[in-house]
Amino acid sequence: MSKEQQSQLDAILRQGRLDTAADAVSVRAAFDAFTAQVPTPADVQQQRVELGGVPGIEVTVAGNETGRVILYFHSGVYVIGSAAATVPLVADLVRRTGVNAVTLDYRLAPEHPYPAALDDARAAYEGLLAQGMDPAQIVLAGESAGGGLAVATLLASREAGLPMPSCALLLSPLADLTLSGETLLAREPLDPVLSPAGLRVHAPEYVGSADAADPLISPIFGDLRGLPPLLIQVGSNEILLSDALRLAERAALSDVAVTLDVTPGVPHVFQGFAGFLDEAGAALDRATAFVKAQLR
Amino acid sequence: MSKEQQSQLDAILRQGRLDTAADAVSVRAAFDAFTAQVPTPADVQQQRVELGGVPGIEVTVAGNETGRVILYFHSGVYVIGSAAATVPLVADLVRRTGVNAVTLDYRLAPEHPYPAALDDARAAYEGLLAQGMDPAQIVLAGESAGGGLAVATLLASREAGLPMPSCALLLSPLADLTLSGETLLAREPLDPVLSPAGLRVHAPEYVGSADAADPLISPIFGDLRGLPPLLIQVGSNEILLSDALRLAERAALSDVAVTLDVTPGVPHVFQGFAGFLDEAGAALDRATAFVKAQLR
Repeated sequence: MSKEQQSQLDAILRQGRLDTAADAVSVRAAFDAFTAQVPTPADVQQQRVELGGVPGIEVTVAGNETGRVILYFHSGVYVIGSAAATVPLVADLVRRTGVNAVTLDYRLAPEHPYPAALDDARAAYEGLLAQGMDPAQIVLAGESAGGGLAVATLLASREAGLPMPSCALLLSPLADLTLSGETLLAREPLDPVLSPAGLRVHAPEYVGSADAADPLISPIFGDLRGLPPLLIQVGSNEILLSDALRLAERAALSDVAVTLDVTPGVPHVFQGFAGFLDEAGAALDRATAFVKAQLR
Repeated sequence: MSKEQQSQLDAILRQGRLDTAADAVSVRAAFDAFTAQVPTPADVQQQRVELGGVPGIEVTVAGNETGRVILYFHSGVYVIGSAAATVPLVADLVRRTGVNAVTLDYRLAPEHPYPAALDDARAAYEGLLAQGMDPAQIVLAGESAGGGLAVATLLASREAGLPMPSCALLLSPLADLTLSGETLLAREPLDPVLSPAGLRVHAPEYVGSADAADPLISPIFGDLRGLPPLLIQVGSNEILLSDALRLAERAALSDVAVTLDVTPGVPHVFQGFAGFLDEAGAALDRATAFVKAQLR
């Protein structure tokens, strides 16, 4: 069934495609309206929380062990998206892994350019440590810009001498805000979600007056030595395929335990379509096995 | 314990290091003597067989289902190595996956340059099909040169219009006989097993009068479209790290389901040291999960 599922999903996504090159504030409203349509399962509890002074949503499923947590960063090129929009996918991860999560509302550009998002992400991680959470029981995770932000948070935490979390799960990470990947143009006809035009408008809003090639903005240019195990999942129908490939390469050359997991024919952050797309559930099964192996 | 295990293993390997730049026939004898020291577990049965007219060793563990098989290709830069030398690692795979294996004695260079090894590998695969084996129940696997040979076998089988097997498991594949990978020199001080000098002597013996950049010799230069799911495992202390990275990239850009699984600090085909090195058992567990998921 999957070829048919893939085509149907692409058609749906193309139809609902946002004009991501429009101004951030108007795109934000459209994005929130789109994602609000996705239902959340009844057994999932949501609660507004603060971590290190940063707002977020705690996502829990009854019966999960406490003492371990997934800290999740949403997508949206650092200018749109929200914690609320991630709840369905985060809830799926929480249920599969048995680990509760906090999905973070980090500050967005253009109002808050770099390093606002990174400062918030790091503050939230420090907030978990300040609560006495064992770093070996913390998983960082993120989708798209949130995947890049997770790696930047690891780098900033390493620089600050903080202990590393157990691992990081990176779904279709945006990891090069210089936008130099070969698939940015080569896969544009295949990608039903993201466009180079949208990235060209919004990436500079986050970068602001900083250098887009700074590893804390574009981790593919960083020395990743000392980072914990990374699982990078990506679809081959993505303009960001090159970001995943180069991040994996950089991690390997930095002697990091890294797994790159490429699913052909599927779009950006396809894991959000489990239940509809066979590959999404399969990828989440592998992500779950990774998280469980790391938290063991 | 693993840092200590890694250092001990490296020291052992460096001590036993073969002068791989010596002539193939004398290296072969030393290699066979070295690998003959590795014990095979008592519950493993070995039997000389022929597949498609090519000799090999069938490795079975009592109680395994029939009707499914791993076709395994040994290491040795196409000039040394043997099916017998792989039996301990193959037996471990057989026990973990529950799938019996045939490990193949393909012809070696310099006596038999390209395409002898590939012809033998493809003949063995066709032999399995001729026995009525369902291709969806066949796994190709290989270590080092055998990993490259597994991919070449997939390409040659695709060109011949043969059905693809379920998947391929590639341990530290040698996938570029032009020897152009950046880690070939950059990781030489870290690699306790392989040397660029050895590869420079023996790779041309296999290539013979062909083009080393032919995808059937160096699959990183191939169009890998249509290949079944690949799991590529590699250690970061390998001069062949670049081969794994580029093969994964090529597979991803060819829309192949590919997983690249990098373990830091471990040497070439480290999976052979399960029981001694924690990472080896963990990697074989992941390989087993992959094989089981694909054969499901």
